[in-house]
Parts: sequence; C-alpha cells; structure tokens
Amino acid sequence: MEMHAFGRLTPVDVARRRLLAATCPIDRVESVRVEAGFQRVLAADVRAPVAVPGFPRTTWDGYAFRSRDTDGATRGRPAELRVVGEVFAEQSYPRALRHGETVAIATGGAIPRGADAVVIFEEVERADELVRVFRPIAKGDRISRPGHDFPRGTMLARKGEELSAPALGAIASCGIPEVPVYALPRVAVIPNGNELLSPGDPPEVGRIYESNNATIASVILAAGGIPEVHPPVRDRAAVIERAIRSALASADLVLATGGSSVGERDHLPRILPKLGPLLFHGIAVRAGKPTLAARAGRKLVVGMPGHPTSCLANMYWLVLPVLRKLARRPGPGWTDGFAVLGSDAVAPTPGLATIVPLRFEKGRAYTTYRGSSVITSMAGATAFALLPPGRRLVRRGEKVRVHYLIPPLGSVRTGE
Amino acid sequence: MEMHAFGRLTPVDVARRRLLAATCPIDRVESVRVEAGFQRVLAADVRAPVAVPGFPRTTWDGYAFRSRDTDGATRGRPAELRVVGEVFAEQSYPRALRHGETVAIATGGAIPRGADAVVIFEEVERADELVRVFRPIAKGDRISRPGHDFPRGTMLARKGEELSAPALGAIASCGIPEVPVYALPRVAVIPNGNELLSPGDPPEVGRIYESNNATIASVILAAGGIPEVHPPVRDRAAVIERAIRSALASADLVLATGGSSVGERDHLPRILPKLGPLLFHGIAVRAGKPTLAARAGRKLVVGMPGHPTSCLANMYWLVLPVLRKLARRPGPGWTDGFAVLGSDAVAPTPGLATIVPLRFEKGRAYTTYRGSSVITSMAGATAFALLPPGRRLVRRGEKVRVHYLIPPLGSVRTGE
Repeated sequence: MEMHAFGRLTPVDVARRRLLAATCPIDRVESVRVEAGFQRVLAADVRAPVAVPGFPRTTWDGYAFRSRDTDGATRGRPAELRVVGEVFAEQSYPRALRHGETVAIATGGAIPRGADAVVIFEEVERADELVRVFRPIAKGDRISRPGHDFPRGTMLARKGEELSAPALGAIASCGIPEVPVYALPRVAVIPNGNELLSPGDPPEVGRIYESNNATIASVILAAGGIPEVHPPVRDRAAVIERAIRSALASADLVLATGGSSVGERDHLPRILPKLGPLLFHGIAVRAGKPTLAARAGRKLVVGMPGHPTSCLANMYWLVLPVLRKLARRPGPGWTDGFAVLGSDAVAPTPGLATIVPLRFEKGRAYTTYRGSSVITSMAGATAFALLPPGRRLVRRGEKVRVHYLIPPLGSVRTGE
Repeated sequence: MEMHAFGRLTPVDVARRRLLAATCPIDRVESVRVEAGFQRVLAADVRAPVAVPGFPRTTWDGYAFRSRDTDGATRGRPAELRVVGEVFAEQSYPRALRHGETVAIATGGAIPRGADAVVIFEEVERADELVRVFRPIAKGDRISRPGHDFPRGTMLARKGEELSAPALGAIASCGIPEVPVYALPRVAVIPNGNELLSPGDPPEVGRIYESNNATIASVILAAGGIPEVHPPVRDRAAVIERAIRSALASADLVLATGGSSVGERDHLPRILPKLGPLLFHGIAVRAGKPTLAARAGRKLVVGMPGHPTSCLANMYWLVLPVLRKLARRPGPGWTDGFAVLGSDAVAPTPGLATIVPLRFEKGRAYTTYRGSSVITSMAGATAFALLPPGRRLVRRGEKVRVHYLIPPLGSVRTGE
C-alpha cells in the first residue's frame, strides 16, 4: 500500500476563487411556457411588443358616456342619459356614442368611440331606458387608457433576471406564450470505491452503502441544478476515467467522489491532470482537505472526498457557489450574518481552516460536528462558520460570522 | 346587464381561517429515491434498520494491530511490528491478528479480528516488512466502532419532516434506497371569460390576454405544488361547471379565475354552491374583494377575481397558506417582520382592509400598488403589508408589520 504526501495545501478562499474563475455560466437556452417560467433565469431582455391594455377599457361595471353630458348635474337636476346598448367584456360597441347616449358596460369592456367616462352602477338610478347621473363625471373616470398598465416598449424583464410572478404576468398579458431561459445545469455525480454498495443492494461484510449521491443531489437540487447520479464504479483508474469522460460529454459539471486523497487507490489525482489543468489538490481545511479540481475545456471536474461530512461540507462552501454561477444565479447560495455560539467550537488541526456546521436553538448556534466520517456531523445544520487557520478555539458566548444556507430548512423546492 | 350587490363581506382573517379549516392535507404517498428526496415531506418515520458503521473500521490510512503491542514504546525503544498483509476498503483480513503482527489498512477498511488500534502512516517508520511505532497507541485509536455514526434503531427522520441533505445521507448510508413521501399537491387553474385570449393567440379588438395562469402557476410552484393550467373557458355556466367538476376528479385544489363578482356573467357564485357549502363570497379587502370559496367533499374550489393584481394578491395572502397546509409544509409561506415605509401608503376604500405590496430600496419599503387591474402593481414586490379596515393612511417613516414572501426574490426552485 503506497502513500504519498499532499503537496502545498491551497487555502480555502484561493481554492474557491480558482474554481469560480474557471466556471463558465450556462450558454444553452431553452424556451419555457410563461406558466413554467417562475425563477428561471431569463436569457434575453423582454420588452412589451404592445401597450397593455391595448384599447381604452373600463375596470368597473357601469355606464359609459360622453363626460360633457354630465356637466352641471346635481342631485336635484340629474343628467339623464338614454341606454342604447350594452357591452360585455369581449365586445366592442359597433358605432360612436352620441350626445345623451350611454351603454351599460361590464368590467374589462372596451369603451365605445365617443365615450370618455364611466360611472359605476351603484352611483346612478336607472328607470327603464333612462339612467340618471347626479354629479358631473370627469373625463377619463373609471377608464383604463391604452398603455395604462405599461406602454409598448416597456422593459418587462431583463436578461439574467430570475423571473418573478408579476414579471411573468406582465409578459403573458402582452400575449407572449414562451420565454427564452438558460438551461438548468446538469451535474454528473460519480462515486468510486470497491467498498461501495448502492442503497438497496444486499449488505456485505466490509462494504458500506454509498450515501454521498443523496447529499450531493440535494445540494444540486437546492441550487436549481439537475443531478445525474451514477451508481458506484470500481476503483480502477481506467474505469473511473472512462466514466468521467463519458459524463463530460453531456454534463455541465462532473463531481467524482472518493479516491481523491494520496493513497494507492486514490486514482483521481492521476486522472484529473489528463483531462486539463489541475486547479488544486489538497485544501487547507478540515473537513474536506482531500479535494482536487481540474478544468476540462469549458467544464470543471471536481474530485470530492468520500467521507460523508467532508463531501457535504465541500458541497456547501465550495461547490454551491460554482453551481450558482453555472446557473447564472446571483450570490454564493448563502447569506452572511452573525451568531452567538451556545457551546465551544474546537478546531482540531493546527494550520487548517475549520468548517463548523451549526444548528440553532433558542437563538444560539451549536456545532453539530462529530468527525468527518459520520453524516450525523451535519444533522440539523442550517448554517456554517469557517474558522481561519490560526483559530484553535472559539468560546461559548462569542459572536462569530456565519453563513446561512439558502434555501433554509423549511423552504420548499418544487416537483421532480 | 344585471348586477347584484355583495352580501355581508367576510373579514380577511376569517376568510383565511375558514379556508384553512376546510383544507385536508395530502394523504397520497409515493416512493422517491433518496437522491430525489430533498425537501419532500416524509410520510413515515425512518429509523435505522442497522448500525452505521456496521463493523469496526478505520477512518485513516495506516496500520492496524493489538494496542498492547505498543505498551512502553518510545522514540529510543520503538515497538516493532511485522507486516503480514494489507486491507483495502472493501476487504476483510481473513484471520485474527496475533501478537506482534500488523496489517496496512486503507481508509474505510474493516479492522481485522484481534486488532484494536490504528496508527497513521505519517507516525511510523517502515523498513521492509517491519513497522516501528514510537509511542504507546491507545486501544480504539483511529477506529470507528460499530454504531459510531448512529446505532440501530436511531430515528433518522420523522414523519412530516422536510427531508434535509444530511437526513437523506443518513438514510442512504443504512442501505435504504427509497423513502415514502407525501405527493406534491396538484392544483388546477381554470380561467373563464369570453374576452380572454391565450398568450400566443392572434390579438383581437376588445379581447385581452389571460395572464393569471402565469402568476398563479408561479405561486403554486413556489409552494411546492404542481400547477395544471387550463386555457380560458367561455363564460357559460354549464361549460365552467363542467370544467371545474372534471378538474376536481384529479386535482387536489381547484382555482377558478374570473366571473367571481356579482355581475350577470359572474357564474362562479351560482356554480360553487352546487359543489358544496360556500365558505364566503366577498372579502373585506382591497384588492381581492370578489373572491369566493366552496368545500367540495374533501377538496376546495376557490373563485378568484380576474383582475391581475387582485388575483395575485389573493394567491399570496389567502391561497399560499392553503397550498402549504395541503402539502403538509409548516407556516403560511411568509415570514413576519417590520419595515419602515419610504412613502405614504393610502387605503383607497373605507371599511376594507388593504393589501399593500412592497418593494425594498435602501432598507425602506415602498408600495408598488397602482390599482387592481394592472399587473405592474406587484412589480418587484417581495413582501406585503395588510392594513386593517380602519386605517386610511400610513405615513412615510412609520414602522409597519410586513410579511416577507418565501421563497424571497433571488432564491431558487429546481427543474421541471
């Protein structure tokens, strides 16, 4: 069994910066229906091709007429208008209204030519074909003029924007059925290791169940990507290399797990440099040190440690920002803040930065960390802190900078 | 054109309470792979069927041996152990280790019988088949004992919980391939109105494009539901009733838009009581007054106003909590807080509560409201305030209670 030492470890922030610098945002564009566009990233500006509304319409049920016909009207001396027809929403009155005429008009109805005001039913008296109006009605009353919602040419949503409900409503109201959006990133996940069984396989002595696929897929989903998880491949260099090259053909990012350290069966450090320039191997952080990455053309291949917590911690602080840049989403996938520790946090290894996963109880933050090999190290964690390399101990009661994960626990992602 | 008056208007909070009381959370359960389980709502407790790890293993690359063999070892007088084999992760050494023997062991490897400690490569010297250890190694060093991550029977995730990445990792590491989750709610959306065109239809004078489907679908997606949007149906009572009854056969909730007021062509107030008890018709709120709802067996049918902003406002403050209860998600879909107004907010109608959509700029909240008929009334809004019926004016600089929508602008939902 041969072992090599890590070379110079790369500081956390340098590793992340190199990864981000090598990340090419998705260029593929697809069309989605406006009903399916929510929070997709728009791939082109959308300007209003028409004014909305496109014609003068009323937003109330009432009577339309020429406003001058109500000049001087009072309760004692009402204006009297003759009802000559009615206009439902989809209709338009066939001729111009004349002096003294009115039409009943339903919400959304087109204002007849000649008319320039509407009074609501509740404000008038109707007797057979006569309507009495008891005060002067101003020109334009209860009328939504063309372009009142927005004129033609209005910028409804900008390229790069995450589409909101109101933006999609405005786009639909111009008659636009589909919008161009950037494709969601496809992320291949390839575990390797002879010891790995897939969940559902019969148990075997000495072998363990692959579980990083489930946690990695979760973070990919949280970041708006499409996980393409593979069953474990055997730790033979040729097999792993073939799996990675094949995934690179279709995926936008490849995450290989296991075999990322410096042992005899750690094949990734020998495979990745064949694919393209190595960005780093070995990060000055715990958990997550045996991590490496290479640029393969315009894509990235990241080799992640097999230990469940090392792997998941890296997904949060290293890969999540990459996923978001790939997907053209703003920000790293967390929001920064401060929290008071409810218990001491200890940095186990001098010279390495420390990832501290945190859960919250009564407003205080508690570390959930129990070692890099146990997934329960992250149970209930909704934020993390990153202690710098010099820091050995942060005491209970101290205020630390924390990164709250997005989406937080309790928020919702949608269908499959 | 006939008009009726609204009866007694129902206060906002009463309307929401009645809807929530009549909402039956989803009972349908489906199985999803652990890799697809993120943030789905678990339909049964999951306890660990096995301990993890299931056997003693090392979490480092090193040598395994009997700890007593290193008793009294010093730099000057190292313990010398004879290397009799090596164990890779998936293997188990075929016999018990004897006094003075050691095996090289890779991370994850099963500790051979007889051995009870591991020392890492970096701490020893190796010469051919001899390994020198320079200090006593304690029993259990570098060994992860069975159940160290979690013992058999541990509660890994509870019924009703939204599955997190670490929970799914723990479940996978027990070998469980799928989890039972509640189905995502299917929500039918049925617009009616002769004036409505579908986006993509050629324009026609007097007709407008249906746009509520896009905004309603967005809120359904944000709440983790599956929107089933229908093209507009004509406003004939029999046609609308047939469409609603047909949707009720498969959808968990039906939202009908348009025709919810008191005019001649407002058919919903006559249709809904045929489906089941009416919960209310007319809410003391602006925008959103012409809204009604009925209970149809264990399902709800909500009649929403056609005005884009009335409809979207109702989706947020009235339907979103219903969607979340249906989906068995905690909370109403917003978080409460306070904000300082950057401009005056005016309540237009005495006696009605007022929904004030808010956007934020430099830490202050500004109303985006421009009338119920224009979708731009909600442009950029990420929160809303609800002014009580008595309140006519809230002045700039005043602090108001606001509801921040989840997900906030900038967070992400996942694939189709």
